[in-house]
Amino acid sequence: MSESTVVVFGDRPPVHLDRVADRAKVLVCDENSLPQALPAADVLLVWDFTSDAVRDAWPGEGPRPAWVHTASAGVDRLLCPELVTSDTVLTNARGVFEQPIAEYVAGLVISMAKDFHGTWELQRQRRWQHRETMRLAGTRAVVVGAGPIGRAIDTALASLGVVVDLVGRTARPGVRGGDELPELLPSADWVVCAAPLTDATRGMFDRTIFDRMKSTARFINVGRGPLVVEKDLTAALVARRIGGAALDVFEHEPLASDDPLWDVPGLFISPHMSGDTVGWRDHLADQFQDNYERWCAGEPLLNIVDKRLGYVPVD
Amino acid sequence: MSESTVVVFGDRPPVHLDRVADRAKVLVCDENSLPQALPAADVLLVWDFTSDAVRDAWPGEGPRPAWVHTASAGVDRLLCPELVTSDTVLTNARGVFEQPIAEYVAGLVISMAKDFHGTWELQRQRRWQHRETMRLAGTRAVVVGAGPIGRAIDTALASLGVVVDLVGRTARPGVRGGDELPELLPSADWVVCAAPLTDATRGMFDRTIFDRMKSTARFINVGRGPLVVEKDLTAALVARRIGGAALDVFEHEPLASDDPLWDVPGLFISPHMSGDTVGWRDHLADQFQDNYERWCAGEPLLNIVDKRLGYVPVD
Repeated sequence: MSESTVVVFGDRPPVHLDRVADRAKVLVCDENSLPQALPAADVLLVWDFTSDAVRDAWPGEGPRPAWVHTASAGVDRLLCPELVTSDTVLTNARGVFEQPIAEYVAGLVISMAKDFHGTWELQRQRRWQHRETMRLAGTRAVVVGAGPIGRAIDTALASLGVVVDLVGRTARPGVRGGDELPELLPSADWVVCAAPLTDATRGMFDRTIFDRMKSTARFINVGRGPLVVEKDLTAALVARRIGGAALDVFEHEPLASDDPLWDVPGLFISPHMSGDTVGWRDHLADQFQDNYERWCAGEPLLNIVDKRLGYVPVD
Repeated sequence: MSESTVVVFGDRPPVHLDRVADRAKVLVCDENSLPQALPAADVLLVWDFTSDAVRDAWPGEGPRPAWVHTASAGVDRLLCPELVTSDTVLTNARGVFEQPIAEYVAGLVISMAKDFHGTWELQRQRRWQHRETMRLAGTRAVVVGAGPIGRAIDTALASLGVVVDLVGRTARPGVRGGDELPELLPSADWVVCAAPLTDATRGMFDRTIFDRMKSTARFINVGRGPLVVEKDLTAALVARRIGGAALDVFEHEPLASDDPLWDVPGLFISPHMSGDTVGWRDHLADQFQDNYERWCAGEPLLNIVDKRLGYVPVD
């Protein structure tokens, strides 16, 4: 077997790909060198999943990688029609981000319930001002996205006594169908978006959603920015039609310093970091290398994405 | 049976004590009127548990209430030697604060792990700055105080994957003894104080404790302020010998606006509110009235404090 070529796309590739480098030629590419390298690649590791470069450089019908792995849960930036219809196998980083993101969402929910932000503001002003806050146990959450991340969020919130409805594309045991979402919204204290970005979900969190939420309810997005119509969320917050929101992902990332979102009242902004705990890069590199060893051994790959659905199907 | 007298001490007494008012004469007292009212009281409801007035006004060997109920978990402000040795029964608000405080501590722990405070600061500066944060699952917590509140904190943290050691006065199944605390501290990521304030615990969190903690570990106090030697904690934080702290209770409450604690680096200050969720006053009033009905019926009271220990003993 001739030496295979593994192309790594990204400007901060993992330092340690020793297990791959022992067996293959590893080429690290940026946006400029990717188009030339891609036709000769057997395997493509998409380390920088925030760029459209892979989609733009995809060789179409020409020679192309047999396997693409992305160091992310979402595959929305990759899926051009030519990749979807090709026989190239696509895998993702399922397993790395679930627990950290679930912890992050649980933390956001408690922080909002207990008004930590208000307490921090009062501390800055050196003001002792007792308030009554919200009891979390017994509140209701709707988690949209019934994949591994949504399920981990469900588990974390439920363990704190929150009553959770998990909403997926279609109803199945333990999962409500997307058509049930409108009737679930009016009783939810928390609406959490952990859905994949697909043609079906783009812009789904718009005015019609926020209008159905309670005036005290909070919205959290840890999925992808374009799932949310930011101007509709902004309008709902400015008019106090909902109680607050936290966004970890945005239509345009990084958010520009002059973006009006920074100052929207009741909106907590974090820079797409909900899943990124210390050691995550090593974890991602290990996961790819484990799968690479399967590939070399002719074993089935883990975390194969259904390219038409846009995610790894789970039961 | 002649009409009994129920004295309520506090400047914001509960509005609804209907079930008591139907059967007894209810006298609401402040610090000035309490000494005169106390000898004639059959029952004393200590609504304001932050004052020393009851201790100061306690009639000693003279006529005194047969039953004192405090609308708090801690009884430290009440326990004068004359009350301890008297036959007066003391009950507390066990059952009201456990779940809210456990949620609050879980929220503090996640907020610190995920650096929400840093993210808020960056948002104020309109800066997109991705960081790696801490994975909560698998971290270790030491919770000092094995009463109902400490146990609820244990349960909440454990449900998020934190490995918890619960430390009580004496070792028993599921509880480490206080003598084991020094050896537990060096591996703890979180040290949480939920102990009662007694002669044995006053000032227990001093330099010897902070010196044994990891430089990344965080300290949280939701018990009582005097459990902590504030100057020792301040020194540990200023020298970055520990990773951070959150205090909900203080040696002197309310904290004066010129108290240097407000500005200690890495210290989150909240105004003694960790257990106070919306409806807590109604919950406290209901709890007292339920116990009052038991008292009238000659049934055993709930939540009887062991006055020598200073808390309600649990298994």
